[in-house]
Amino acid sequence: MYDLIIIGMGISGISAAIYAKQAGLNVLMLEENAPGGTINKIAEITNYPGFSKITGPDLAMNLFDTITKLNIPYKLEPVTDVILEELKTIKTKNNVYQASNILIATGRTPVLLALPHVKEYLGRGISTCALCDGALYKNKDVALVGGGASALSEALYLSKIVHKIYLIHRRSEFRAEENLIEQVKHTKNIELILNNEITSLIIESNTFKGIKLKNKELLVSALFMYIGSKPNTSFLTNTALKLEDGYIITNEDGLTNIPGVYASGDCTKKEVYQIINAASEGALAAIKIAQNKTL
Amino acid sequence: MYDLIIIGMGISGISAAIYAKQAGLNVLMLEENAPGGTINKIAEITNYPGFSKITGPDLAMNLFDTITKLNIPYKLEPVTDVILEELKTIKTKNNVYQASNILIATGRTPVLLALPHVKEYLGRGISTCALCDGALYKNKDVALVGGGASALSEALYLSKIVHKIYLIHRRSEFRAEENLIEQVKHTKNIELILNNEITSLIIESNTFKGIKLKNKELLVSALFMYIGSKPNTSFLTNTALKLEDGYIITNEDGLTNIPGVYASGDCTKKEVYQIINAASEGALAAIKIAQNKTL
Repeated sequence: MYDLIIIGMGISGISAAIYAKQAGLNVLMLEENAPGGTINKIAEITNYPGFSKITGPDLAMNLFDTITKLNIPYKLEPVTDVILEELKTIKTKNNVYQASNILIATGRTPVLLALPHVKEYLGRGISTCALCDGALYKNKDVALVGGGASALSEALYLSKIVHKIYLIHRRSEFRAEENLIEQVKHTKNIELILNNEITSLIIESNTFKGIKLKNKELLVSALFMYIGSKPNTSFLTNTALKLEDGYIITNEDGLTNIPGVYASGDCTKKEVYQIINAASEGALAAIKIAQNKTL
Repeated sequence: MYDLIIIGMGISGISAAIYAKQAGLNVLMLEENAPGGTINKIAEITNYPGFSKITGPDLAMNLFDTITKLNIPYKLEPVTDVILEELKTIKTKNNVYQASNILIATGRTPVLLALPHVKEYLGRGISTCALCDGALYKNKDVALVGGGASALSEALYLSKIVHKIYLIHRRSEFRAEENLIEQVKHTKNIELILNNEITSLIIESNTFKGIKLKNKELLVSALFMYIGSKPNTSFLTNTALKLEDGYIITNEDGLTNIPGVYASGDCTKKEVYQIINAASEGALAAIKIAQNKTL
């Protein structure tokens, strides 16, 4: 029986854990993949105050290091079900945990293009993580689809590794910080293909060979997808938790529509999805949970 | 003429500057004292995600380093007056600057006990900064007044330098994280004096000698005050900006009641005053300012 179980060890969950532990709460963390969450997949972070520049894995390591130093218990177990009654019950594959409060900080997962063969060739030509897979395509030609800040910053990262990148975007303008757009436009081995879409993958002899666009074919060794994200909240669909497009609705303290159930970071409905904001939201939720406990 | 002038180079202002610069805004920062703001006075920060432990001056240095690397212009000039019309005019002692948007991120300043001689002996026995002045009282006896988290964490810091600390609090319980309270209670050279108040300073031959409490006198070399803070907003009192107890009222985007005037961090009215939240608020305000510019 815990005061607080935090689902998700990304920066939002870890920030909450730091505050909860320092407030004397009995905390448990649960994580499906690696501590650090999505940050592990970011090549270079240049907008987290305190670091002029840090790799995602290094920031994730720092965060995990704090959890270790504070002796905060954690389990690397995927959550399979939650029962959100006055006592909160959280089931993983082999265990059942209970707490008076839970904080859901499960973040988001990249969306895949809805085309045949995409899921099948994930890890064999299709990737959503330039940092994880970029080195496999050293001096090769690759394509990258997307038009937001993630797409552009990961294209810049890949441009230093691969021979050439075709950056494909279905619109004529990018949605990102101006200096990022300028950098991409000035990078010689990034060729922009705007107002175009991928219509199918080219597969030969069970191997990914390239992509078909509306009006041409590109032979490339890999296709990186940065076309958006969806919240990791599918384990909540059978609860009474209020969601919108899968995102959890909270008030400004991170409280959901169910007492004792809080959410923070990228799995919540909000306008701005930045690392620094996710960290702040986790801290706020933990402070509120600690305040309510002592009332 | 700037897109954005940020008043205050604490973590909130610097966080905003990072985002504003990366969004392509033409930014200027103004600071009265040292870049880093209040953080410079904190001995040890253990709740800023990304660092398990960092000194305030080290975090301030990191922040300033980012401003330098991003070539964000700044001036170390106190603001004397602001005119908040459609064009925002900011006057410092020797200069006048103009911008279409301003962000006020001026933070807070420690409150002093309202007793005779306090202001006169600031820096000569009276201090609001254990980190700045603690080393002056090595192996001496000192007093520290206050009952919140700042008071307790700074008492712990001083306990490693001075011979003995009398920790004076007017109530019987502290308002701070439980583990902080436990640490203070288990520190041998901190003597708690609860339910008591300082009634006057003992001054002899123009020298601070100690303090009088309700029922006793303490001969100490210094008195450290951690009894709260007030927002640094006195330069705004002649404007139409909506304040409450001196704190600036904003919406969730950091926008005040005046178009183009934003505020973030500890100078705003809110419930939680933590470093990570101040950083987040600065980033959010800058993102909103950049969005409005491109609309």
